Amino acid sequence: MCQLLGMNCNVPTDIMFSFSGFSQRACEHADGFGIAFFEERGVRCFVDAQPANQSPVADLIKAYPIHSKHVVAHIRKATEGHVALENCHPFTRELWGRYWVFAHNGDLKNYHPRLHGAFRPVGDTDSERAFCWLLQEMAKSHASLPSAQELTRTLRELVPQVAQHGTFNFLLSNGEALWAHGTTKLHYLVRQYPFAQARLQDADITMDFAQIAQRDDRVALIATEPLTSNEPWTAFQSGELKVFAQGQLLDSD
Amino acid sequence: MCQLLGMNCNVPTDIMFSFSGFSQRACEHADGFGIAFFEERGVRCFVDAQPANQSPVADLIKAYPIHSKHVVAHIRKATEGHVALENCHPFTRELWGRYWVFAHNGDLKNYHPRLHGAFRPVGDTDSERAFCWLLQEMAKSHASLPSAQELTRTLRELVPQVAQHGTFNFLLSNGEALWAHGTTKLHYLVRQYPFAQARLQDADITMDFAQIAQRDDRVALIATEPLTSNEPWTAFQSGELKVFAQGQLLDSD
Repeated sequence: MCQLLGMNCNVPTDIMFSFSGFSQRACEHADGFGIAFFEERGVRCFVDAQPANQSPVADLIKAYPIHSKHVVAHIRKATEGHVALENCHPFTRELWGRYWVFAHNGDLKNYHPRLHGAFRPVGDTDSERAFCWLLQEMAKSHASLPSAQELTRTLRELVPQVAQHGTFNFLLSNGEALWAHGTTKLHYLVRQYPFAQARLQDADITMDFAQIAQRDDRVALIATEPLTSNEPWTAFQSGELKVFAQGQLLDSD
Repeated sequence: MCQLLGMNCNVPTDIMFSFSGFSQRACEHADGFGIAFFEERGVRCFVDAQPANQSPVADLIKAYPIHSKHVVAHIRKATEGHVALENCHPFTRELWGRYWVFAHNGDLKNYHPRLHGAFRPVGDTDSERAFCWLLQEMAKSHASLPSAQELTRTLRELVPQVAQHGTFNFLLSNGEALWAHGTTKLHYLVRQYPFAQARLQDADITMDFAQIAQRDDRVALIATEPLTSNEPWTAFQSGELKVFAQGQLLDSD
C-alpha cells in the first residue's frame, strides 16, 4: 500500500517538517514518490521514480521552503502498473481552467471505467483511470467551476461508484479546496491556536509551533497514518469524504 | 523576450552541460523558468518563479543528472501575464493519453482565440492560450495519436494562423518527437559522430564529447541563441517548422 500526505492551510505554509517524517516511510514504499504544491492557480509537481528517502528531488523538498496552501504528496508501493515516472502520483490534469491533482492509496480490482471524454490515462494504473473517470463525470455535471460545496455533493455521488471496486483512499485538490476520501486508512488533524510542540512519529524531530505560528494560522493535515505522536489525529470512517479549505473542515458527512 | 532550449536525443541524455550555460541567461530574463523532461511516457516539469540563476530548483537540475530523450526549457521575461507560477512555461496538458509540453518565446498581440474545447488556460498569457488552441485544433483533426509526420502536416496548417498575430517561436513535445517553430530567432544543432569539444557561449566551460559520447549517440539541440561558440548552429528561417526525433531532423520545410 502507498502512503498519502495532504496539507491545507489558511496562509501559505511550508511542509518541510511533515515531509521530513513522511519521507522516512519510503523504506517500505520504495517505488517512487511525488508531491504537488499549489501556489495560487499554479501548481508544481515533483515526481521521482526513486524512493523518497534517497531521491535528490526529495532532498530539495526537505531543504527548500515552498510555501503553499494546498499540498498533496504520495509515496508509492506499486500494486498495479510498472515502476515508471508516468505511474507516479500525484497525477495532474486541467479542467475548467484550473489544475487538479490526485493521489490514491489502495487497489481497485478490475477497474476499467468507460473513458469517452477528454481525460485519458497516460500510464497504466487503476489510480489514474479513477482520476480520469472522476474528472470526466465532474465535467458532465458542471459547465464551469462549481463551489467547493457543490462539487462535494457531486463527488458524494461519484466516489462510491469507484470505491465499490476496492480500496479508494485519495486526496484531490484544485488549489481552492482539498477533498479527502477514506476507505480503509486515513487520518486528519487541524493544527491551530493554541499551538504546542509536535513530535514526529518517524524521525527524532520536534517542532514548537507556539514559537513559529501566528495566532490566526490554521493547518489541516491528512495522512495515511498520523505523522506526529502527540497530537489528536482523527481517523476517517470508511466511506467518509471530507473537504478542507482555509485550514479547516468545510462540512462533514 | 524569453529564451528557449530544447533537446532531442536517440538515447536518454542529461542536459546539465547545456542547462549550465542556458541558465546564465536568466540575468536578463528574471521572471521565472521551467524545464520539462520526458522519461518514456512520463514527464516531470520543474518550474520556479525565481530566476534560473538563483533558484534552488535550477541548482537541482544542474547537479542531478536526469536522463531524457526530450527536454523543453524556458527562461521567462514577462511581456504579457503577471509574474506567477501559473504563467511559467513549459505548460503541460494531456491529449490522446500522452502528455504535451509547450514553451513559447515571443508576443502575440490581442490574441484571444475561441476556446470551446477541452483545453482552457489556467494563467493569463498569450502563450498558454496559443497552446490550448493548438491542442484543441489537433484534437479536432485526429481521433487518436497520429504519426509525427502526420501531425507535422496538421501543425503546418495551424501554426501560421497563430503566427500571424506576432512572434511565435516555440517548442512542443509529446515525448516521441519535438517540434520547433521559428518566427524571429531560433537555432539548432545536431551533435553526432565524429564528436569534438564544445565550448559554452555563456560560461567558461568546455566539454569533450569525444571522451564521453558513444559512436551512435545523436543529440539535436534547439535554442534561441547558439549555446556553444564553436559548433555549426543553423538559424531557422522565419516561418519554419521543424520536427526532431531520435536526435535528428525528421523532414524539412
